[in-house]
Amino acid sequence: YISNGTVIIPGASSYNGINLTPQMGWDNWNAFQCNVNESLLLNTAKAMVDYGLRDLGYNYIVLDDCWSIGRNETGYLVENPEKFPSGMKHVADTLHGMGMKFGMYSSAGIFTCGRFPGSLGYEQKDADLWASWGVDYLKYDNCYNQGQSGTPKLSFDRYNVMSQALNHTGRKIVYSLCNWGNDDPFDWAYTISNSYRMSGDIYDSFNRPDSRCPCTESIGCAWPGFHCSVMNILNKMAAIQSRSQSGAFNDMDMLEVGNGGQSDSEYVVHFSMWAMNASPLLMGTNVLTLSPANLAIYSNPAVIALNQDPSAGAAVRKWQYFLDPDQTGQGEIALWTRGLANGDQAFALINAANTSMTMNATLYDIFLDAATAGAYQTPAVLGETWDVYDLWGNRMSNTEAGMLINGTAPTLDAMSMSNSTSRYNATATSYADGLKANATALYGTKVGEIGPMGTFSATIGRHSLGLYRIRQRSGAGMRKRDGL
Amino acid sequence: YISNGTVIIPGASSYNGINLTPQMGWDNWNAFQCNVNESLLLNTAKAMVDYGLRDLGYNYIVLDDCWSIGRNETGYLVENPEKFPSGMKHVADTLHGMGMKFGMYSSAGIFTCGRFPGSLGYEQKDADLWASWGVDYLKYDNCYNQGQSGTPKLSFDRYNVMSQALNHTGRKIVYSLCNWGNDDPFDWAYTISNSYRMSGDIYDSFNRPDSRCPCTESIGCAWPGFHCSVMNILNKMAAIQSRSQSGAFNDMDMLEVGNGGQSDSEYVVHFSMWAMNASPLLMGTNVLTLSPANLAIYSNPAVIALNQDPSAGAAVRKWQYFLDPDQTGQGEIALWTRGLANGDQAFALINAANTSMTMNATLYDIFLDAATAGAYQTPAVLGETWDVYDLWGNRMSNTEAGMLINGTAPTLDAMSMSNSTSRYNATATSYADGLKANATALYGTKVGEIGPMGTFSATIGRHSLGLYRIRQRSGAGMRKRDGL
Amino acid sequence: YISNGTVIIPGASSYNGINLTPQMGWDNWNAFQCNVNESLLLNTAKAMVDYGLRDLGYNYIVLDDCWSIGRNETGYLVENPEKFPSGMKHVADTLHGMGMKFGMYSSAGIFTCGRFPGSLGYEQKDADLWASWGVDYLKYDNCYNQGQSGTPKLSFDRYNVMSQALNHTGRKIVYSLCNWGNDDPFDWAYTISNSYRMSGDIYDSFNRPDSRCPCTESIGCAWPGFHCSVMNILNKMAAIQSRSQSGAFNDMDMLEVGNGGQSDSEYVVHFSMWAMNASPLLMGTNVLTLSPANLAIYSNPAVIALNQDPSAGAAVRKWQYFLDPDQTGQGEIALWTRGLANGDQAFALINAANTSMTMNATLYDIFLDAATAGAYQTPAVLGETWDVYDLWGNRMSNTEAGMLINGTAPTLDAMSMSNSTSRYNATATSYADGLKANATALYGTKVGEIGPMGTFSATIGRHSLGLYRIRQRSGAGMRKRDGL
Amino acid sequence: YISNGTVIIPGASSYNGINLTPQMGWDNWNAFQCNVNESLLLNTAKAMVDYGLRDLGYNYIVLDDCWSIGRNETGYLVENPEKFPSGMKHVADTLHGMGMKFGMYSSAGIFTCGRFPGSLGYEQKDADLWASWGVDYLKYDNCYNQGQSGTPKLSFDRYNVMSQALNHTGRKIVYSLCNWGNDDPFDWAYTISNSYRMSGDIYDSFNRPDSRCPCTESIGCAWPGFHCSVMNILNKMAAIQSRSQSGAFNDMDMLEVGNGGQSDSEYVVHFSMWAMNASPLLMGTNVLTLSPANLAIYSNPAVIALNQDPSAGAAVRKWQYFLDPDQTGQGEIALWTRGLANGDQAFALINAANTSMTMNATLYDIFLDAATAGAYQTPAVLGETWDVYDLWGNRMSNTEAGMLINGTAPTLDAMSMSNSTSRYNATATSYADGLKANATALYGTKVGEIGPMGTFSATIGRHSLGLYRIRQRSGAGMRKRDGL
Repeated sequence: YISNGTVIIPGASSYNGINLTPQMGWDNWNAFQCNVNESLLLNTAKAMVDYGLRDLGYNYIVLDDCWSIGRNETGYLVENPEKFPSGMKHVADTLHGMGMKFGMYSSAGIFTCGRFPGSLGYEQKDADLWASWGVDYLKYDNCYNQGQSGTPKLSFDRYNVMSQALNHTGRKIVYSLCNWGNDDPFDWAYTISNSYRMSGDIYDSFNRPDSRCPCTESIGCAWPGFHCSVMNILNKMAAIQSRSQSGAFNDMDMLEVGNGGQSDSEYVVHFSMWAMNASPLLMGTNVLTLSPANLAIYSNPAVIALNQDPSAGAAVRKWQYFLDPDQTGQGEIALWTRGLANGDQAFALINAANTSMTMNATLYDIFLDAATAGAYQTPAVLGETWDVYDLWGNRMSNTEAGMLINGTAPTLDAMSMSNSTSRYNATATSYADGLKANATALYGTKVGEIGPMGTFSATIGRHSLGLYRIRQRSGAGMRKRDGL
Repeated sequence: YISNGTVIIPGASSYNGINLTPQMGWDNWNAFQCNVNESLLLNTAKAMVDYGLRDLGYNYIVLDDCWSIGRNETGYLVENPEKFPSGMKHVADTLHGMGMKFGMYSSAGIFTCGRFPGSLGYEQKDADLWASWGVDYLKYDNCYNQGQSGTPKLSFDRYNVMSQALNHTGRKIVYSLCNWGNDDPFDWAYTISNSYRMSGDIYDSFNRPDSRCPCTESIGCAWPGFHCSVMNILNKMAAIQSRSQSGAFNDMDMLEVGNGGQSDSEYVVHFSMWAMNASPLLMGTNVLTLSPANLAIYSNPAVIALNQDPSAGAAVRKWQYFLDPDQTGQGEIALWTRGLANGDQAFALINAANTSMTMNATLYDIFLDAATAGAYQTPAVLGETWDVYDLWGNRMSNTEAGMLINGTAPTLDAMSMSNSTSRYNATATSYADGLKANATALYGTKVGEIGPMGTFSATIGRHSLGLYRIRQRSGAGMRKRDGL
Repeated sequence: YISNGTVIIPGASSYNGINLTPQMGWDNWNAFQCNVNESLLLNTAKAMVDYGLRDLGYNYIVLDDCWSIGRNETGYLVENPEKFPSGMKHVADTLHGMGMKFGMYSSAGIFTCGRFPGSLGYEQKDADLWASWGVDYLKYDNCYNQGQSGTPKLSFDRYNVMSQALNHTGRKIVYSLCNWGNDDPFDWAYTISNSYRMSGDIYDSFNRPDSRCPCTESIGCAWPGFHCSVMNILNKMAAIQSRSQSGAFNDMDMLEVGNGGQSDSEYVVHFSMWAMNASPLLMGTNVLTLSPANLAIYSNPAVIALNQDPSAGAAVRKWQYFLDPDQTGQGEIALWTRGLANGDQAFALINAANTSMTMNATLYDIFLDAATAGAYQTPAVLGETWDVYDLWGNRMSNTEAGMLINGTAPTLDAMSMSNSTSRYNATATSYADGLKANATALYGTKVGEIGPMGTFSATIGRHSLGLYRIRQRSGAGMRKRDGL
Repeated sequence: YISNGTVIIPGASSYNGINLTPQMGWDNWNAFQCNVNESLLLNTAKAMVDYGLRDLGYNYIVLDDCWSIGRNETGYLVENPEKFPSGMKHVADTLHGMGMKFGMYSSAGIFTCGRFPGSLGYEQKDADLWASWGVDYLKYDNCYNQGQSGTPKLSFDRYNVMSQALNHTGRKIVYSLCNWGNDDPFDWAYTISNSYRMSGDIYDSFNRPDSRCPCTESIGCAWPGFHCSVMNILNKMAAIQSRSQSGAFNDMDMLEVGNGGQSDSEYVVHFSMWAMNASPLLMGTNVLTLSPANLAIYSNPAVIALNQDPSAGAAVRKWQYFLDPDQTGQGEIALWTRGLANGDQAFALINAANTSMTMNATLYDIFLDAATAGAYQTPAVLGETWDVYDLWGNRMSNTEAGMLINGTAPTLDAMSMSNSTSRYNATATSYADGLKANATALYGTKVGEIGPMGTFSATIGRHSLGLYRIRQRSGAGMRKRDGL
């Protein structure tokens, strides 16, 4: 039922017609938890506009838990007036005025995870209220669900009530399930939502095991937990990646880049692999204190272009070897690949072992799915020569990032974006159009080629990765087998 | 509840009276995926007639996903008029005129896997339409099932609706469940269907593990997935083989022979073990470009006779040892055996390790079930001498196969089929009758014997197998314990 | 909720008031499968009376599958008139006249396992018919259950319908569930039945793994299967043993003693451990051709007295070590113990490894539960001296067994049973009374003693066991802590 | 959804407003099982008052199973008049008069575990009766539940009936679920109960595996069983610890301290880790024969203060290594930590290996959650100097404990409690207030300090632990980041 690793979606569209590529934005939880208020949201939004993040696609400001004080006598939720003195509609209106969108949080239970009122039993009332405020997005959690879980049907039915309620408002609202992979949402959530968490909560560690995140696979995980590391979550994608599809994405949880628990190269792996797997990209740090280096990671248009590729599919882990463990007891190297809409391929060589390694990617491994898809002859792609682009080759310098933060960077002229190798304005030109136009910023730097049946080699540092896009030399991304 | 490894079925018949031996035919998916149209089906059918495949039993032409464009205003499915300009009834009529039958595809969900309209909620309407077209077969998938899974009861109830709908049409339609072993269909599907997939989707690899097919057992598999190798699927049969029964077969998925991903000897293992296990045999390749070698594999009547044996039961894995892994990290040798309706036994010595091996099959292992079935004395079969036939001994030569493809082969005279060692016409003489008549083509070549309590030895190449039928020397297949 | 390893059952009684100790008898399946008829049942019963088996407690003649030909126009089952020309009531009456009882078979599905009509949906009609025939026992299988499984509730509800139906007849009928441990019957079947199978079907092998019996634990076993060896089933008891209770026993499946697949010492382990674990003891062999050695195994009153002990609880595996594997790849030694109603203890030292071993049982291990049950001081039992009786010490000689078979053995005078060391008449004197009276035949031979805090050692042969009963020297079984 | 390892609970309160810190008291089962009567309860209560245990917080006297003789003609439970000749109300009144509270037992099934009448179907009637007697607490077991389990929903619904019934009485009754972790109560029981057992029954062993307690994890445990050791239960907490919360605690089962199966240092580990994990602390021994050493363990106010800390959260296992197994085959060392309400941290270095070891705790490990919680800079806590208090440093001497038992100890003047290093009166001054007042008895002895980014080292004996509380030198427990 799967063709070359990609679900075939004729007339592809999501259940509600929006979010055809993964949502991007910011959510306060990872950095601020319950410490939320109006100015945090609005100041963050302003910084995101100023730093160019909005124009890279990060346009949702998602307010997480702890914003309400309860329900009023008619059963409607009431925001905390100390935190939100101007009211929620004001927040939404202000964000909209900045070209941003507004996300809201609740739980499919009697309480939110922070024990504020949940939406179970109040779905339509809450959806109506949010729509009246101008909310564009709902993150919908799984706490305090009164035991209404244990089979896919029980979870589907519970989450479907809010799906119907949101649709009934008439407002287009991105519906983001946060049920931590419980009851396998990757097997049923795509017809009622726009994204679905597939693991326990992330924490800011590259690969440290934690007793509170006991599963190493997403499937059949009886206890998603929290404190899951980047590599833990990444590997949980391998089995279920086919269920990421246009409009309905496996959500690997909010990004930790900038929070201090990982090295620069580890954050690069984290950001790259979330992008490669078409995960929603929600910044989870304090934007107002963002370092230049971390801004440079969040701002790489060549990597974001993978995430926003119209193919809308996740990557495939072609191989993985366990070896050379570090002090956490973990060690592995792996090859992940992903087919792109224009015929290009992306691949990542991940070194999550303890020492630097020379790693290889063969054309056969990259195109394994084509080679075993009933082609009854060697696929043409294996006989081509492919140019190799290092997608981190044009990473923004800390100087340039510092100028953006300081407000001293020159304005990006969207009309001449091809003149910049490190900056991009997706508001002006979509990633899809930019790719068609061969926008420099979306391709990194050329670092080599792979000949027919060839192999690409690179030395990859400890806890680092090489991230590449390859395209056919002759045809600039044209597909040989258009008929397929 | 099991006698000598075979379910006792007095007055054996399937739930709908048809498909008493496994269905055979062709399905377009593995080679063509969504690239379907009228001429592909009809041209393929013609080639199958011309090559003798129809008369070997391959008589279903199954049209897989992507054939419709939606439902009309009265809720009936409408075929894609560009792909099927003459309409579906024309396809069915033409196929019937060629002595072939017509198979159709849908899903027990709101969409098919390719996101075309599914049949959930439209079961009777769709069944009626297909019956009106003259459809003979339904492959019924599991995509987009709205979370209606998680216990056998949930899946049974969902698939039973279509079972009842098909019966209600009055037309005999083979009902083939494609739910990938989800919720253990081998434990409940036999009373409502004719076959049931027992694993995630096959891919054209002999034994390469793939992260998208995470289970190594069919039972308790929380994520069937896809990209399952031949050896992965084969071993998933070992635990559940007893549930294959006349009229209701465990379906190991469509055959990959001819698609280019495996060596000739690997395809021989694949085809042999699908036959041994009474799996439906659906060719999954482009018949119009079939090579002589691959036609020779598909066309071995001695192997097909195992598949179509009236015993209608799957093989037993008597032993399995893990050793000598190849570059995929996999390595095993195994003995599989199967009792046949005429008292013969079949057995396969599989070498899925990395080097050639001398392997042994003892009469005790072959007849283990008889020896431990309450006989309270050594079974007579262990004291007999058995002639050993190599079922690949008379494999059709590439020259002969090439003549069939070129249309230059002499016509097979069904009346004198015993004159051919490599070709057979099951349309003229059923396999059951052919076995009774000792048709040469169904027995391969004699390669030895096994004396009382004896052992058979053979050298089996890497990624290859020996496939044998043994029969009692004295009694030509007569059973000693007829009273049993 | 458990005291000293035994469930406390004040006024212990089963759900229907009968079967307070495990049922004993004969079932045709293991040896005859579907080859059943009136004379087989009646001739077997006669032999069981003649050989003294009835008076040892084996009084149920259970007719297994394949006895019916369908339902009549009013929906009642009809027996096969060729197999049962005198009708079922005649069989029951004749058995009753011999002092035997009559057991019947059906399945909680639409078919029996042999595809004869099942009782699902016909429970009351079938129960009424059986009661009218004089049936005393129902073995109720699990085949063709239409997917009505997957949670304990689904299975409980399905099996409860027949439980209510049997009660409604007014006739006392032992209700024996045969659902192979599916959905954990040891967690719910005791309130609706008298015994419940806890594993897949047995086969006549001591410890050979078989791919058709994939689980090694009873709990969480997704596929009970069949072809489970004696050691496989035994070890599946270890976790669930506490759920065996008076009137509702974990059923380890019918005995294979006599069927030829195991050595004499292996059959001794098999019989001993079924007895130790309060499993129903159903002979599963051809009684009419029983060898003297096998009759001697079935007829050991000292072992049956364990099985029929009023304590009605299963044994505890106190330790198990894996070592010294045999040709099947299996090897273990283990200590199992069981507290008895009169204060005695039984223990078994099992050598399922490949060579003879000297094995030890310490008083501490035997009385571990007392030592850790909140005694807040060393339990008195550890400070006592215990006499050790080898329960196989008085095994009937083959000469004596042969005389029983030939009808030349002297009549056992029940009134002076203490004069026989190897024979016993439980019809005349119950095991409980015999134990109180220190009947010689129930104690085997004294082989040593264990002093305070001491250890018992014995050399146990390969695939063999030592089975012992110990009692306090001073008090002849009196309990020190009567107040408890 | 979790902040720094602690669930955020604004206006924290339990579902019924009581039991905000874990219940403490005594339950007769571990030591007396069914051997219950009025005088046992009242004499035990008197001793608990006399020994100072009541004033340490142990104020519930829980009567376990076997107290009833059935239901009367109106369906109400009737107590056993031989065991409780004065009636239950008398017991409750007398306990209340002593400043104690009265706990009662039943099962959410048709029988209790001891086969006395259960409350399934009689919930309101039983709750009303208990309330009329003045019952303050219900332990509600899981035996004989008629298969109403298998998904969280089935168990939630069953247990919720009694929750509603108790609330409906109008009396405040602690509701303690005893369903052994079945169907993951840590995922749903907090909105309907005050505590929930998370494992099979404990037995009095430090770490001996037992076949009757087959799981090593609480999650996905298909068979909780019984005879679970202290270390088995402790490690089952690691994954689920986040679900312990104010008013609703994971219950690790009753304490075995004093029952004779473990060494003094093992009992110290047992008691310390139950306290660290906010488990209910129910004494499970014979108080009337308590030894001075065991009284000293139960009476350590510095350890109880952890248990009763207002943070009401369980500890986190930061690391665990398997090594150096003892005669049971088990061996591990581990670090567990817990944040406390006043900014202090507690940590335990556990040596469950076979020999003495020098063990280290780094500030980084202790504050891992702060370091990875989105702080985007090194947390201030890592840069502080911390004083280290050994919470067993002031363990009561056996002489002092003996005087308490003999009634010769001086009366504790609650007003000058700071004068005692080993005794405390929580009736007079709550633990929260005592901590604020730096009561000596709640802090043990200072044994060192940890500098910025430093490490604490200690030599920990075999089967022993070091249990420490650390506080910031400069701020006496003040939090640096009050805004959070």
